[in-house]
Amino acid sequence: MSVQPSSLRGRPVVALCGGVGGAKLALGLERLIGADLTVIVNTVDDFEHLGLHVSPDIDTVLYTLGGLSDIERGWGRADETWNFMESLGGLGGETWFRLGDRDLAMHVERTRALRAGMSLTDFTTAMARRFGIASRILPMSNDRVETMVMTADGPLPFQRYFVGLQCAPVVKRLEFRNAEHAAASDQVLAALKNPNLAAVIICPSNPYLSVDPILAVSDIRTALERVTAPIVAISPLIGGQAVKGPTAKIMAELGVPADSVAIAGHYRFIDGLIIDETDRADAGKVDMPVHVTSTWMRSLEDRDRLAADCLEFAERLATVERRKVT
Amino acid sequence: MSVQPSSLRGRPVVALCGGVGGAKLALGLERLIGADLTVIVNTVDDFEHLGLHVSPDIDTVLYTLGGLSDIERGWGRADETWNFMESLGGLGGETWFRLGDRDLAMHVERTRALRAGMSLTDFTTAMARRFGIASRILPMSNDRVETMVMTADGPLPFQRYFVGLQCAPVVKRLEFRNAEHAAASDQVLAALKNPNLAAVIICPSNPYLSVDPILAVSDIRTALERVTAPIVAISPLIGGQAVKGPTAKIMAELGVPADSVAIAGHYRFIDGLIIDETDRADAGKVDMPVHVTSTWMRSLEDRDRLAADCLEFAERLATVERRKVT
Repeated sequence: MSVQPSSLRGRPVVALCGGVGGAKLALGLERLIGADLTVIVNTVDDFEHLGLHVSPDIDTVLYTLGGLSDIERGWGRADETWNFMESLGGLGGETWFRLGDRDLAMHVERTRALRAGMSLTDFTTAMARRFGIASRILPMSNDRVETMVMTADGPLPFQRYFVGLQCAPVVKRLEFRNAEHAAASDQVLAALKNPNLAAVIICPSNPYLSVDPILAVSDIRTALERVTAPIVAISPLIGGQAVKGPTAKIMAELGVPADSVAIAGHYRFIDGLIIDETDRADAGKVDMPVHVTSTWMRSLEDRDRLAADCLEFAERLATVERRKVT
Repeated sequence: MSVQPSSLRGRPVVALCGGVGGAKLALGLERLIGADLTVIVNTVDDFEHLGLHVSPDIDTVLYTLGGLSDIERGWGRADETWNFMESLGGLGGETWFRLGDRDLAMHVERTRALRAGMSLTDFTTAMARRFGIASRILPMSNDRVETMVMTADGPLPFQRYFVGLQCAPVVKRLEFRNAEHAAASDQVLAALKNPNLAAVIICPSNPYLSVDPILAVSDIRTALERVTAPIVAISPLIGGQAVKGPTAKIMAELGVPADSVAIAGHYRFIDGLIIDETDRADAGKVDMPVHVTSTWMRSLEDRDRLAADCLEFAERLATVERRKVT
């Protein structure tokens, strides 16, 4: 495991995170700084399915940090079985969104807890504790925000687009419905307003589908604008492609080049960008501090190393800021 | 397969049925007379669990007649797995009532259908059709009726008593809450009021826990009183014990001898009682026509043979009635 930069030791760090790609880095951070980490997770992919409240990104983060995730498949739980789904198909039920037998317990239990009046934040906290996760995992909001993907084929609810249609329709625009009215939870705001905050890390999640919804919550956006700690984003692109998911496809459809410059332009409020060594040539073109490293997280060591890189980069940025101020 | 008595051929038969024991005979009847059979099933064990509408007896009948049941375990589906339950335990959820991964699909789909406004009757009919079941399987009512078991330890909801406490508390009385207000469905009443009805069979289910609740629905009770076809009950007791379940224990607790005379006394409105050959000595003590046969259904052939016996006995009773009238 890498060593945490000394000046940040014991100071809180916030990570903004979507699903699989982001959760990999969140795991590295959890292993590096444990209880000092707060992960704010996108909930805009949440939806009611089969009468159950499904929170795909929260579950990916919980399972990944809790050591329960299926590394090969990239989502859901390890040692998963699919007998519920097979049986549901036999009854004529909806099978386009696959829920594993083990995973299903989370959705049933969460639905029960929410109906009993528990907040999504408190439920997620209880599950993180149960999984032995040291860091805090916080839904971006307890309020429902829904992505509507405006496509060439018309508007599509997120999971219809993402899972049902495998991201095939051409994206014209994304709408995060109710984002302006959604409130960040007290816990999210407390984490972002902590005066001792050492860094904010924007994980290499899809900027359009996973990070933008978090930023669309006005409380969070405002709190981020006031953060004095360095904000560092990790580009999800490697050589113009995402490791997983439709980031590059969506950028092309929105008429944006799939490169580091575009990612830096998208995250205008950040203090530094981490890009993959494949894209080293982009470093000079980006109008902000850039750190070049390997961002492809294949092994656990890759996750640890990138997490350490993020914090070291944030520390260097903080030093630069301090020098500027002095 | 046994041969259906000729005078009943093509005429409708109604069976009243609880869970496992009753479903065995219902399977024999389904195999014998198929589409001529209507099974009216107890729903008083239904309950909301983990936010899902669970209908234990309906599912036992559906799975049994659909060839999907676990013969060994006696409830639930064959080839069942328990990963949902194991995972739920890991999340701190309630695990005292076990739901298999395959079985769970039924509860999720039914809950979804009921919330969408479908009746329990229509949902059950759709599932029976999907499972290729020829006979009609009808919940006794679309309205909720709940058993409250009044025990020496206080009142207990049915599943707490039956599954949670394994029937250990001493039963003092049974209450079927809302039974007076529950309406039999149109389909149930149509089946019982069919002027061509050949017989009503009361399956060897628990008289107190499974059959009484059906009889407690006043529409059904009234319709049964007006039925002119023979009503035949099969005693669930063999040598003073039920093959499965707490029938004898409850009878002892209620101060009733666990024998054929007590069963006949309990079902005062029936025209004939079928008892096991073990209890042949009881035949003379029962104040109604008795047919003695083997009622223990171990093999599929046993189910077929007992089903044929029931119909033959009903036919004989009808002939006697006709002679009396003539």
